Amino acid sequence: MNILITGGSGFLGARLARTLLQMGELSLNGGAPESIRRVTLADRVAPPADLLADARVHAVEGDLAEQVAQGALQLADTQLVVHLAAAVSGECEADFDLGMRSNLDTTRQLLDACRRAGHAPVFVFSSSVAVFGDSPEQPLPSVIEDTSLPTPQNSYGIQKFIGEQLVADYTRKGFVQGRNVRLMTVSVRPGRPNGAASSFLSGMLREPLAGERARCPVAPDTAVALSSPGNTVRGIVRAATASAREWGARTAVNLPALTTTVREMAEALERVAGTEATSLIDWEPDAQVARIITSWPSRFRPARAEGLGLRADESFEAILREYVRENPQAVKLPVKG
Amino acid sequence: MNILITGGSGFLGARLARTLLQMGELSLNGGAPESIRRVTLADRVAPPADLLADARVHAVEGDLAEQVAQGALQLADTQLVVHLAAAVSGECEADFDLGMRSNLDTTRQLLDACRRAGHAPVFVFSSSVAVFGDSPEQPLPSVIEDTSLPTPQNSYGIQKFIGEQLVADYTRKGFVQGRNVRLMTVSVRPGRPNGAASSFLSGMLREPLAGERARCPVAPDTAVALSSPGNTVRGIVRAATASAREWGARTAVNLPALTTTVREMAEALERVAGTEATSLIDWEPDAQVARIITSWPSRFRPARAEGLGLRADESFEAILREYVRENPQAVKLPVKG
Repeated sequence: MNILITGGSGFLGARLARTLLQMGELSLNGGAPESIRRVTLADRVAPPADLLADARVHAVEGDLAEQVAQGALQLADTQLVVHLAAAVSGECEADFDLGMRSNLDTTRQLLDACRRAGHAPVFVFSSSVAVFGDSPEQPLPSVIEDTSLPTPQNSYGIQKFIGEQLVADYTRKGFVQGRNVRLMTVSVRPGRPNGAASSFLSGMLREPLAGERARCPVAPDTAVALSSPGNTVRGIVRAATASAREWGARTAVNLPALTTTVREMAEALERVAGTEATSLIDWEPDAQVARIITSWPSRFRPARAEGLGLRADESFEAILREYVRENPQAVKLPVKG
Repeated sequence: MNILITGGSGFLGARLARTLLQMGELSLNGGAPESIRRVTLADRVAPPADLLADARVHAVEGDLAEQVAQGALQLADTQLVVHLAAAVSGECEADFDLGMRSNLDTTRQLLDACRRAGHAPVFVFSSSVAVFGDSPEQPLPSVIEDTSLPTPQNSYGIQKFIGEQLVADYTRKGFVQGRNVRLMTVSVRPGRPNGAASSFLSGMLREPLAGERARCPVAPDTAVALSSPGNTVRGIVRAATASAREWGARTAVNLPALTTTVREMAEALERVAGTEATSLIDWEPDAQVARIITSWPSRFRPARAEGLGLRADESFEAILREYVRENPQAVKLPVKG
């Protein structure tokens, strides 16, 4: 089996690639397990060294739209496409045309290339919790169901929701076997801040653990729905392995999320690394970031995901301790317990 | 005030133009009434002669995408755009690329042209009941609310739903003042059959009244949601006149619909023109048409439309008698009552 991961050098793409390479084989679309022969990582930048060192990894660097146009992605013998590449929410709000190009046009071009390949590959589309947005004219329901109407309040959410519609129709037409999954906010991400409005939801833990100051731009009581990197990758893999029958409707599946607050996250940080860590958090509100974050829902009833055997993380402290375990080089403060 | 109607030579576009020209003035977006100086009708074909004879009518013939690209639509001094032009459902199912180009790309190009114009015109987007589709994996609710999740089961519905998302985000960004309205199936349309799966819902009345045979491709008990031409135009005009506050959310408003069955429609025809008319109906099922039609919902609770003062037609017989009154030249059989 050959696999393509777009955004494959990013944090989530690289983690997914490592997970798949370690599994060695995959049961695609409810079928028999097949060994994974090639994992193509398409991204603007090269993948991490550990991935490049694996003989099964094929790296394709550059602009995804150009790679598609040039036929550089070897789709003809690719059985699974995981489309993670996207401009993030903050970027899309700052540069409307960039978001439309990166998130709408490129997704459509990739779907068209899969269609031309002619063998209907499994196509996992990473949509986002950002399709849900609260507004005075149309308040969100207090708990989001799989059938709740998305009313995106930013361009990123609109573009992701349009991507879901495209994947659904290309699936109905038999061009791909689409699996729309809505990822929750991933925390704790290792590495550096990015342009996502949700970036601080990792930074306010990661930076203090590294002995650096971090800003929290929202009020402590702000409720958020989070998923650990490991749990997020489990959801993506499950989307690829599920049969069409298990998966059900072509609309998107909301992945499970842990509902917590920014205050509880800080309290978990204090239990893990003491006030030495939490004193490094600067509580400085930023109205624009807060508007985006508080427009996202924080409570879900993810019936379809649970039917597929997926569960939310147990607690934020568990997520945080997993981060500390997996990223010892990034933790400079002494850890308790 | 200057107005652009795309698809302006079509049945609905021409009727809307006549209504607006007769009104003479319009209160746009909750503002003061202004006299209508120019109505531009953009379409592949020329408008009907009565419209061409009106000095306020400006006809632009050709491909809409080309007209947009050539700047032929005078958007710089246009205050209201009503975007009706679209490839219809049957065409989109038969030719996927045509549908994507006509309904998705052209809508986006028109929105971008409005954005470049810089003054945020009111933009009424005619979406469709076809955004709702029933499927075994995701049955429709028995009654559709304004907040029901669209799950389109054909490409036309997907493209219309994507159009709604684009209009919503271009509105949020201040590029246009969008009004997404979902039109119900319009019956009785005068003229000839078109490529829409719903075409027979006019043809099975119109052709017998003209003394011609007509085919009904669905079972008599098939329930449908209909709106007369006059009531549909009332809904479109109300969308243009409503203030942003009256309109509310940027998601689409379902226009009111009369719930009836194909059998009741035939019974109304018998009351209006006797068995001489109904004996001209050939009840010959067509599985493909029936699959599309029965996947559309037939019952609505159109709370937002009702809040705007809009109502469904009173009965199908009333719709039919209105057709007979408005189209005497097309009725060859003697009419009762």
